[in-house]
Amino acid sequence: MARPLRRRASLSFLNGLKPLIFYVTLLLSLLCSAGTGREGIAEEELFLDILRDEAVDRIYQLGKVSDADNYLERTFLSPASMRAGNLIQKWMEDAGLKTWVDYMGNVHGRAGGVNATAEALLIGSHMDTVIDAGMFDGSLGIICAVSALKVLKVSEKLGKLSRPVEVIAFSDEEGVRFQTTFLGSAAMAGILPATALKITDKSGISVQDALLENSFETTEESFAKVKYDPDSVFGYVEVHIEQGPVLESLAYPLGVVKGIAGQTRLKVTVEGSQGHAGTVPMFMRRDPMVAASDLIVLLESLCKHPQNFLSYDEQYARIPTESFAALVCTVGEISCWPSASNVIPGQVYFTVDIRAMDDTTREAIVLEFSHRVKEKCQSRRVNCTIEHKHNAKAAYCDKELSLQLQQAVHSTVSKTPWSIQEDVPTLMSGAGHDAMAISHLTKVGMLFVRCRGGVSHSPAEHVLDDDIWAAGLALLQFLEKNVLY
Amino acid sequence: MARPLRRRASLSFLNGLKPLIFYVTLLLSLLCSAGTGREGIAEEELFLDILRDEAVDRIYQLGKVSDADNYLERTFLSPASMRAGNLIQKWMEDAGLKTWVDYMGNVHGRAGGVNATAEALLIGSHMDTVIDAGMFDGSLGIICAVSALKVLKVSEKLGKLSRPVEVIAFSDEEGVRFQTTFLGSAAMAGILPATALKITDKSGISVQDALLENSFETTEESFAKVKYDPDSVFGYVEVHIEQGPVLESLAYPLGVVKGIAGQTRLKVTVEGSQGHAGTVPMFMRRDPMVAASDLIVLLESLCKHPQNFLSYDEQYARIPTESFAALVCTVGEISCWPSASNVIPGQVYFTVDIRAMDDTTREAIVLEFSHRVKEKCQSRRVNCTIEHKHNAKAAYCDKELSLQLQQAVHSTVSKTPWSIQEDVPTLMSGAGHDAMAISHLTKVGMLFVRCRGGVSHSPAEHVLDDDIWAAGLALLQFLEKNVLY
Repeated sequence: MARPLRRRASLSFLNGLKPLIFYVTLLLSLLCSAGTGREGIAEEELFLDILRDEAVDRIYQLGKVSDADNYLERTFLSPASMRAGNLIQKWMEDAGLKTWVDYMGNVHGRAGGVNATAEALLIGSHMDTVIDAGMFDGSLGIICAVSALKVLKVSEKLGKLSRPVEVIAFSDEEGVRFQTTFLGSAAMAGILPATALKITDKSGISVQDALLENSFETTEESFAKVKYDPDSVFGYVEVHIEQGPVLESLAYPLGVVKGIAGQTRLKVTVEGSQGHAGTVPMFMRRDPMVAASDLIVLLESLCKHPQNFLSYDEQYARIPTESFAALVCTVGEISCWPSASNVIPGQVYFTVDIRAMDDTTREAIVLEFSHRVKEKCQSRRVNCTIEHKHNAKAAYCDKELSLQLQQAVHSTVSKTPWSIQEDVPTLMSGAGHDAMAISHLTKVGMLFVRCRGGVSHSPAEHVLDDDIWAAGLALLQFLEKNVLY
Repeated sequence: MARPLRRRASLSFLNGLKPLIFYVTLLLSLLCSAGTGREGIAEEELFLDILRDEAVDRIYQLGKVSDADNYLERTFLSPASMRAGNLIQKWMEDAGLKTWVDYMGNVHGRAGGVNATAEALLIGSHMDTVIDAGMFDGSLGIICAVSALKVLKVSEKLGKLSRPVEVIAFSDEEGVRFQTTFLGSAAMAGILPATALKITDKSGISVQDALLENSFETTEESFAKVKYDPDSVFGYVEVHIEQGPVLESLAYPLGVVKGIAGQTRLKVTVEGSQGHAGTVPMFMRRDPMVAASDLIVLLESLCKHPQNFLSYDEQYARIPTESFAALVCTVGEISCWPSASNVIPGQVYFTVDIRAMDDTTREAIVLEFSHRVKEKCQSRRVNCTIEHKHNAKAAYCDKELSLQLQQAVHSTVSKTPWSIQEDVPTLMSGAGHDAMAISHLTKVGMLFVRCRGGVSHSPAEHVLDDDIWAAGLALLQFLEKNVLY
């Protein structure tokens, strides 16, 4: 059933009057400045139909492509992921791009422009989702990029590109299925070892098997072909929802990203002594459930009050307190064996996600947590093991690309009431992004889009239709200014 | 493949020399007393082939009937449970019993004896298992009963029973699938409300649907027929592995049960605010995972040191400290939603199992836990709900039946080195049993069988072949003494 576009658009305006006033003023001011050149944007260059209505429609369409009936779930190479890839490929072709899918399931769409062998500008984001996801995370960036290129096509400018522009929909960023992130983008950047093909999911299927099931004949040889040559690329740009509350608090639709927090993912296994819930006295138990709970409470204390834990150590005492500000730790998964209410579990597993802007802080927290786990487990007479599933240093965006993105945002809003603000907001990202992996291949730049309440990874995730339009428009401005003759 | 009976039997002897000395002496002393009447047991009355070899073989056979490939799992009405029921029914018929299956899936086998309308003696245990179970829990009691009756058949005594004897294999005691125990025995005792038919499992299938899927047309009307008339029954006897360490520590194969601990099962749901693991600051989180962990650690403290929590309260201060001795609390299941390592969960669920010999103690602990949950959840700004899934008062065994069982055990071991012990051990059961439910229908008596290390609800669960034989022999003694003309 087709989405009633008009109704939702008007509903979104009701969410706050500020955007309404902003865009009416933007439209009026742009109309006044029509024909004055690049400083303003001519009416016909607003492309409401493509950059807003069609983009919004496509985001909602993609939001319905799910492996679950009642919520959004699209993990790496799942049936819904394959359907989503096909849809995106169709939209890329509609935008005049030449498309293909690589051996890791990434979908590519490329316009060669005037000089097809020049270093290419990459624009991308991911098409996989978490479980019970919002529909903007990932999809927004892919669709804004496709829409901006479609505008160039209908404006007959696609052939005039000074360098190739390639849109990429990455197959895995969230890492839900294989507990390891960036399978798509890290392979492209050449930082994913071929051994990753052997990683298995919960049902024992390996990455390679999952690829084969979907007709990707990914061997170590063909896997190597997914990697891009750094000399063949110019840079990478990604549009993504903020997933945090900063832009909303500044009442600004777009922001430029300075860098992305580093991240460590652990899997903790606690092994105790399985037994009957009614017959083993409390003092004789080696209960991994209580031990795991104890460790989870400890992790929270450690990340809420790191100075209490680290200050005793000379090495860490030198970490400035402000480094702790963005430190976050999360246990998002837990399970136990054999999982029956009348059985003391034999094993408990849980995941740990630790992020910080400052790499030293993160490493200190990981080390301290590991030490404390060892102590607690010894005193509870359970065996604990910690596997390091993922480690990524903080990544910083390229200054030049960031400046160009800033100018594009500025140009989009320059003739509006917000021009009183001197600077386009710049922020750090607590969430990981494909840009993190791609920063190992080439320079990267990122644009954040405001989302309601800073909520993400939840069906309550929401982006205003007009903010999607603003993102598309800024990307279009960036392309027109930097890769058009 | 047939089990190498002899080899395992000899291995089990190696587990300790005591049983070897015991049984060799038993055999010799019994041979010496052969023909002296009821005080001893004649050689031909030892029935090694039926009471040990065949019984052991059947326990191992049933231990392989599983819904899982690599471990034992047989929950209420599962495909493996249905196969197990068929096997048991076949063995009951082989023992000369008239068989049928009732509308709750309980398998019955009955010998009418001389007076088919007299009050019947029931003997039973359960055929369902926990997940990753041991093979003796439940099965042992059913198979010992069938074996003892088979001995009466081959001895041509089955027709001489003074009252009907009925063996029952109950369909659900563990409560794994529907999170509520005793679906089979409670229905027979008439204490299960018909509304239980509407309870659903994790995949949304109701008890009634599960019955229908297996061709049981269980309506409210036919469900009522499962209930037995108290006037039609004389009493109930159950043989079960101890699932605890007492008999092993006394070096005694059998014991008589005084009573069964009361039990409360709760399901706790903790609801917080779902969000992105990288972007929500620690101080802004309403994280149900940390809250649930906090509650699990609290529960452990409460059950390990109840006096610290309850002593401040006048009402509870009067509970004598010895009432706390057998108090045990267990969290055997936990899960969260949406369960992804990079998402702060929105919900966490866990089960709580609280048992005590003293009902007042148990009720005090449940109340205190509920109060503390409320406090903790308020301070953590999460919503917690506690569902009471199951509540059973402690059940006490009938003195007369217990005395008869005691005499049967005594008679079995009377001519042995252990006769130096004045009394057959009597113990309390921390584990729940069908006898608990049946105690609402008629007087009950229970016999415990020693198990290795007190371990149960685990594949490491083990009972010596000769202890199985001793159990069958004691049951046979009990029948010969009490229900034979």
